[in-house]
Amino acid sequence: MKARVVVTLKSGVLDPQGKAIEGALKSLSIDGVAAVRQGKVFDIEFDGEDRDRVRKTLSEACERLLANTIVENYAIEIV
Amino acid sequence: MKARVVVTLKSGVLDPQGKAIEGALKSLSIDGVAAVRQGKVFDIEFDGEDRDRVRKTLSEACERLLANTIVENYAIEIV
Repeated sequence: MKARVVVTLKSGVLDPQGKAIEGALKSLSIDGVAAVRQGKVFDIEFDGEDRDRVRKTLSEACERLLANTIVENYAIEIV
Repeated sequence: MKARVVVTLKSGVLDPQGKAIEGALKSLSIDGVAAVRQGKVFDIEFDGEDRDRVRKTLSEACERLLANTIVENYAIEIV
């Protein structure tokens, strides 16, 4: 079973990497971009097919390792 | 208009960061994980509402800046 976790910065948290990308896009004359925020994505493969267990395991993984929940949000998507 | 770009390593390309996360999950006794691959996500806000233009701009941004198309795939999602 496959799952995807997307970790993004909470709104209000400064994102210098996103700002740098915004600047780089402008300097490449790629116009129309109002804002860029960068995050991380984890594609995780699980043994077994128990969706509830996978969701529970992923929540724990996010809380303990994948996301810093003080400044980041996470979203779990089971494929 | 908002869009999300997800950049992931092509299959076959080694992902040491993913491997490290896999090891860390194991050492936290978070079990059942068979494989982890890490990628990047960009949340991009656009001026205007022309979907075709946004898609074209994003393809160009991916090819020229956001993804290294030799070793990475990208997926564009317009929200």
